[in-house]
Amino acid sequence: MSNTCAAGLPFQTIGIVGCGLIGCSIAAALKSRGFKGRLIGCGRPGANLETAVNRRFVDAAETDWAKAASASDLIVVCTPVDQIVRDVRTLAGAARAGTLITDAGSVKRAICEPLSTGLPQGVVFVGSHPIAGSEKQGCAHASSELFEKRICVVTPKSAARSAVERLIGFWQALGATVVEMLPEDHDAALAQTSHVPHVVAAALAACLGASNRHLTAGGFQDTTRIASGDPELWAAILLGNASAVVDGVRDFSESLSAVAQAIEKGDKRALIELLRCAKENREAAIDARPGRVTDREGSESGEMIE
Amino acid sequence: MSNTCAAGLPFQTIGIVGCGLIGCSIAAALKSRGFKGRLIGCGRPGANLETAVNRRFVDAAETDWAKAASASDLIVVCTPVDQIVRDVRTLAGAARAGTLITDAGSVKRAICEPLSTGLPQGVVFVGSHPIAGSEKQGCAHASSELFEKRICVVTPKSAARSAVERLIGFWQALGATVVEMLPEDHDAALAQTSHVPHVVAAALAACLGASNRHLTAGGFQDTTRIASGDPELWAAILLGNASAVVDGVRDFSESLSAVAQAIEKGDKRALIELLRCAKENREAAIDARPGRVTDREGSESGEMIE
Repeated sequence: MSNTCAAGLPFQTIGIVGCGLIGCSIAAALKSRGFKGRLIGCGRPGANLETAVNRRFVDAAETDWAKAASASDLIVVCTPVDQIVRDVRTLAGAARAGTLITDAGSVKRAICEPLSTGLPQGVVFVGSHPIAGSEKQGCAHASSELFEKRICVVTPKSAARSAVERLIGFWQALGATVVEMLPEDHDAALAQTSHVPHVVAAALAACLGASNRHLTAGGFQDTTRIASGDPELWAAILLGNASAVVDGVRDFSESLSAVAQAIEKGDKRALIELLRCAKENREAAIDARPGRVTDREGSESGEMIE
Repeated sequence: MSNTCAAGLPFQTIGIVGCGLIGCSIAAALKSRGFKGRLIGCGRPGANLETAVNRRFVDAAETDWAKAASASDLIVVCTPVDQIVRDVRTLAGAARAGTLITDAGSVKRAICEPLSTGLPQGVVFVGSHPIAGSEKQGCAHASSELFEKRICVVTPKSAARSAVERLIGFWQALGATVVEMLPEDHDAALAQTSHVPHVVAAALAACLGASNRHLTAGGFQDTTRIASGDPELWAAILLGNASAVVDGVRDFSESLSAVAQAIEKGDKRALIELLRCAKENREAAIDARPGRVTDREGSESGEMIE
């Protein structure tokens, strides 16, 4: 969907640091939405950076971070969550006064707390988390529509309002709905909506016996889909939000025990009631997603299950 | 996909008892694959039976089970799992000698054990479980391709080989790959591949807080999709395989604890290894599904996740 939402953004040059799925999707969305400034893709030499240039997601590739940082008035750091603090510090050290830096990491407290101090005067960091992505990695899977009708959480804390407003405008220009949250509130919420589901999907995928593999159907496949995500990236996310994830796993285990106990006792009435509440809660969650047009009864894919 | 696989089936009249998603999909598949005999849809008066006739899935609708049974040489019982034993007995009492009866229930021991005795002389019951379905219920969602390239488990135990072969030919004519198993082996396997994932999905959907609903993405949606299945049907399935499901939940909980402990200890190496094993096991399962053309890295839908 091409439009001109990004044409009026108040940035001359945007540096995208880390040209994987998220970084290149940001670049692709800016281009397709009419951004008039310059886009610099920055990262290690390799396939992602080459693809970013070849597919014209960015105007230039830069492996020298200091050069990219000093040329940019907005820097979006899309590196793995356990590298973002270090990367922001490096980039901030080379940036001009007035430069705004944000990230796209799935955890916020472990990133925003250390970065609330120690940056050079005039360089502002505000955390972001666009709740969009894919288990498919890399620039090759980038999509200019990745952020459309998705939530992007922005965690300003004490940042100047003018900087926050510029950042909100940036994500809105990519099609996202922006929600402001405290980093710790973001992390508690995302543990429940994303990180615990990942742990659960992985645990489920891990305990399937080899001799039963041919007896799975769409139900197993969907329930475990996110377990196909990149193990290193996800380990960093889970460890970056460890206490909220461990709390969330405990809550989930209690919910699981209630269902298992109803089964063990043969309590059909209680079991139906638990399954009904789960179904209603799921459907309310799907209805609550922004701009979501979907069949409340099921997934978009209509994938078959046992 | 129309073909003539069902043209040569050795049945003059097939009775489909229970005209919901599965029953009507069987009827639709038989018609689209050239079945030359007569199809009788049998069930309670109502929308499903009307749709079955109006969409010409069946040649006639019958609310008198005895009439349908006495006219059929194959009867496929597609009622909820906790009604199948009673329904097969009722139908068998009215059937002619030589009639073959099967079912489509997701549990097998609780159905096949009681039905191994007490049926009238000459009436044979052999259990079936086509591993296909949808969280969408009812004849309106029927598909003639529902069983194509899916596994159908058949649990013959001591039935005459000629009857078993006729039943295998029936499911193959609908496009399924048939696997013979003992009822108890089927139940142990399906607990792992389908019933425990259902319990896990429901438990996960149930523990999402209302204030976090707008922060879910495709990961949560897919992981919980099967929790949108019908609570009454699923309660019957889970209670019909209670001991295997409870055992399976215990195995899953151990797998979950291992991941949670690695997170709590901050053991990145162990966590990556657990996530990598889960990813590999999931992808091996997807590769093992019959005739499955899919991207090993992800779902067919390409649905986005956090």
